[in-house]
Amino acid sequence: MTYAPPIRDMQFTLDKVIGADRLAQTDLFADATPDTVEAILLEAGKLSAEVLAPVNRDGDLTPARLENGVVRASPGFAEAYKAIAEGGWVGMNADPEHGGMGLPMILTTAVGEMMNSACLALALNPLMTQGQIEALEHHASDEIKELYLPKLTSGEWTGTMNLTEPQAGSDVGALRSKAEPQGDGTYKVTGQKVYITWGDHDVAENICHLVLARLPDGVPGTKGISLFLVPKFLPDENGNPGVANTLKPISLEHKLGLHGSPTAVMEFEGATGWMVGPEHGGMAAMFTMMNNARLGVGVQGLGIAEAAYQKALAYAQDRVQGATMVSDTNTILDHADVRRMLMQMKALTGTARAICLDTAFSLDMARASSGDEAAKWKARGAFLTPIAKAFGTDVGSEVADLGIQVHGGMGYIEETGAAQYARDVRVTRIYEGTNGIQAMDLVGRKLMDGGTAGEALLGEIEATAKAARADYPDLADALQDAGETLASTMDWLLKAEMNDRFAGSVPFLRAFALVLGGHYLLRGAMAQDSRLPLAQFHILQLMPQAAALCAAVVQGAAPLYALDAEALAS
Amino acid sequence: MTYAPPIRDMQFTLDKVIGADRLAQTDLFADATPDTVEAILLEAGKLSAEVLAPVNRDGDLTPARLENGVVRASPGFAEAYKAIAEGGWVGMNADPEHGGMGLPMILTTAVGEMMNSACLALALNPLMTQGQIEALEHHASDEIKELYLPKLTSGEWTGTMNLTEPQAGSDVGALRSKAEPQGDGTYKVTGQKVYITWGDHDVAENICHLVLARLPDGVPGTKGISLFLVPKFLPDENGNPGVANTLKPISLEHKLGLHGSPTAVMEFEGATGWMVGPEHGGMAAMFTMMNNARLGVGVQGLGIAEAAYQKALAYAQDRVQGATMVSDTNTILDHADVRRMLMQMKALTGTARAICLDTAFSLDMARASSGDEAAKWKARGAFLTPIAKAFGTDVGSEVADLGIQVHGGMGYIEETGAAQYARDVRVTRIYEGTNGIQAMDLVGRKLMDGGTAGEALLGEIEATAKAARADYPDLADALQDAGETLASTMDWLLKAEMNDRFAGSVPFLRAFALVLGGHYLLRGAMAQDSRLPLAQFHILQLMPQAAALCAAVVQGAAPLYALDAEALAS
Repeated sequence: MTYAPPIRDMQFTLDKVIGADRLAQTDLFADATPDTVEAILLEAGKLSAEVLAPVNRDGDLTPARLENGVVRASPGFAEAYKAIAEGGWVGMNADPEHGGMGLPMILTTAVGEMMNSACLALALNPLMTQGQIEALEHHASDEIKELYLPKLTSGEWTGTMNLTEPQAGSDVGALRSKAEPQGDGTYKVTGQKVYITWGDHDVAENICHLVLARLPDGVPGTKGISLFLVPKFLPDENGNPGVANTLKPISLEHKLGLHGSPTAVMEFEGATGWMVGPEHGGMAAMFTMMNNARLGVGVQGLGIAEAAYQKALAYAQDRVQGATMVSDTNTILDHADVRRMLMQMKALTGTARAICLDTAFSLDMARASSGDEAAKWKARGAFLTPIAKAFGTDVGSEVADLGIQVHGGMGYIEETGAAQYARDVRVTRIYEGTNGIQAMDLVGRKLMDGGTAGEALLGEIEATAKAARADYPDLADALQDAGETLASTMDWLLKAEMNDRFAGSVPFLRAFALVLGGHYLLRGAMAQDSRLPLAQFHILQLMPQAAALCAAVVQGAAPLYALDAEALAS
Repeated sequence: MTYAPPIRDMQFTLDKVIGADRLAQTDLFADATPDTVEAILLEAGKLSAEVLAPVNRDGDLTPARLENGVVRASPGFAEAYKAIAEGGWVGMNADPEHGGMGLPMILTTAVGEMMNSACLALALNPLMTQGQIEALEHHASDEIKELYLPKLTSGEWTGTMNLTEPQAGSDVGALRSKAEPQGDGTYKVTGQKVYITWGDHDVAENICHLVLARLPDGVPGTKGISLFLVPKFLPDENGNPGVANTLKPISLEHKLGLHGSPTAVMEFEGATGWMVGPEHGGMAAMFTMMNNARLGVGVQGLGIAEAAYQKALAYAQDRVQGATMVSDTNTILDHADVRRMLMQMKALTGTARAICLDTAFSLDMARASSGDEAAKWKARGAFLTPIAKAFGTDVGSEVADLGIQVHGGMGYIEETGAAQYARDVRVTRIYEGTNGIQAMDLVGRKLMDGGTAGEALLGEIEATAKAARADYPDLADALQDAGETLASTMDWLLKAEMNDRFAGSVPFLRAFALVLGGHYLLRGAMAQDSRLPLAQFHILQLMPQAAALCAAVVQGAAPLYALDAEALAS
């Protein structure tokens, strides 16, 4: 079983569904011509299939381990990481000024999907670094930029994000870590951070921790938090790793999955750090890092979905079992319900891919445009981001779960690898803001424009329905109806109290994503006949759930609180 | 965190929702008075909470292992098993003639739920034995009954089911194991069987394998298969374990979950066995065993759902995190989406419980009745059985998955135990006939009566809607509408070709279960006001999905085959 990078489908989605060819018409991304795009995707696909995929199982079987205060990565991970770094992929979205490729996000998204499909546990490592590069590019002093960005961009050094503390999970403002100014531009950072992805390892020569901590005069809550860059080894005068800093991993978590990705509890004991961004301005800097990381996490779900789908399809084509109603080949692929599962996996994965790529496209267009145009694209990307994160990762779990089911009894045996996908992807629905928090963002912050961005997307959906009406009237009607239901549901949300919005946020996000799926897949079908069956399946068999979800949205918060804790327990 | 047996809810469901008090009015179950029922539930609940639950995590952390040809159970499992056996629980549904309790299935179902909640890996062991007892009671010779049933009923010996072979999973008829008659009433059984639950262990003194194999003159397919009882140790003249038989576990599977339950590959090398039932009649005997085991597996899903729900609720009440819109206690229980998850978990679990108990009640009433009355109850139970199995186990997975989400980052850490529930329960959707096969059974075999049994259930649903109309018109209307949609969908199925039925089987089963949930929970609300909010939530927020699922059912098979293997892969 080998992973086959879905490059053709990515290109089709970019060109025919999203219309991403518009990007090469901008000055900023004029280099992103079809030929260049293809060359980059092929190269990343090759790396993913040939170098990363082969170590995925090793990471699961031989977890990273903490030995004598140092984390040892899983077998083969150091070599595979080196291949990522040497290919320039760590710096694919970094500023060329410091050695980056400066690729548009549509490409880093597509490349990310392939790396995640191949080995999510390892792909997390450069993802963390990429987020750090972005935060430093936006918020760090020139001195820090000069010193750190080339090392991070080349992958010689890696980056981490240190937000969470035991008592402060989603509620970052409750953190207690402290930073004391030393009067020489440095700070002593003290505190304990948990869930630090790739918090320590031996695959690169230095690790740069971005740590949220409170200055002595920092007020309680998020407004008193500042951001510090705290390297594992303090750079010497030549910028090379020097004296060890006073920080260390004190334990690794025993997780459901992603065993190849060390998740550390980090202890900072008066560790030397440098402030990034202004005093008490840490959250803003961290949000820069987290915002795009959200899309990146959605793409993790997408990557696992694609890999799990490919694996299940290959198994179904191979597994001979029982007579079917339609053929005498007797592979389970010919059983109707196995077909249903595979169609569902493919439709959901295709929808997630289109949403993620379209989110990236919006963010790219925002950067490449200016004025109102830029604001419009930015708002579009901002609206799509929580959908990409939550739906992408939900789909990752659902498709991996269906993948187990397609494998039957073999799916429950770890050697098969189907279960690993389900275990690995599970956390993506939790970290970088739980999917519930994404949904709250969608109905809260993302509707603060009065619904403009959401309505613009609904307008696109309506336009698709209109364009399809002549050739596919039933699909067009279904899409039109679903869009109208979404629109009236969004109107309800806009008029509702905030907790009523929150109560319906998760079903609303899901409904929106399912209807977007109808829109994207129908656009695909209009561009290429052979894609019609998938659009039909999605629109007529999956998308009807959107109306049922919208029915739940408009019930408001009261029904959710109608049972008190005692009644819930009885 | 302790497991609290939901005895009050079970009693309420039995008495007020299902009307199981009718059972004590029959001659057969006249002893099943409310007092007796309560005493039994309390005793089983105590055993589950105090003896079984404490070893659940040990089973996960220290899997059963194969050492020198013998399987060693997880720490504490032998003692906990002994407590089950000594309490008489292995024989709870066995004939009192051989030492059993002869309890009705409503009670074995309720007791099973609690044991499954507490430690599914261990509870599987007596479940296997119970199935074997039932098969022997119905099909074995008196000699075998006299010798084996007392030992199995007391739990001194345990039982296994040996169906599957590597090339013959769901397609049992493809099996290759052979049995050669020795002319003395014994047979030499040779072959390899896989996925044998508790196939070997050290918690009891003997293990009795029921093995499907083919006699020399057995025709290919299921009609040439016979059933053999093949003990690990051949009973000596006193009926005690004597000479070792020529069979052994050759490996244990490395599974996603249920690590405490050894899943063996068993090798039979001319092992001595005795035929159970007639020549070539093995499948009928095996079906006896499997049929009730299907309900038992549905109850496994239910048990995990209840345990996962309790754990998540306790965590949500305890975890302080972020300000909420409704309170200043700031536990995550006050977040609307956490409430939504808990309500969903509770509604789905309650629905699964009612379906499982009602299935058991039907089967009990069939046994306790005669003539047309018995046939009617039997058909009702037969219709509900695949729903109980598939929906019960689907709910187990869904609730365990939501349980992880409620725990946030902690849910991904194995120490928490939330992930173990999701891992453990996952296989229940696969074994004992995958849930897809259950759905095929529902729309195939269970509609062979022309829809009579299904229509009778729909009539009960309609009656509930009618009874509720005066007090709860909106809920009554919603239930009535959903029942009508189900009815017209069932009509469509009855007229459809078999593969069109199969194509829609999984969504149809799900839709039926969701509407049954509305029916049961509304009956509960009519009996007790405090249960109204759960019924409202289910009917107005979850049950609307039934219509969307029915829309998928009637699409038929063609759309599922519209993409060929190549198109699926591109």
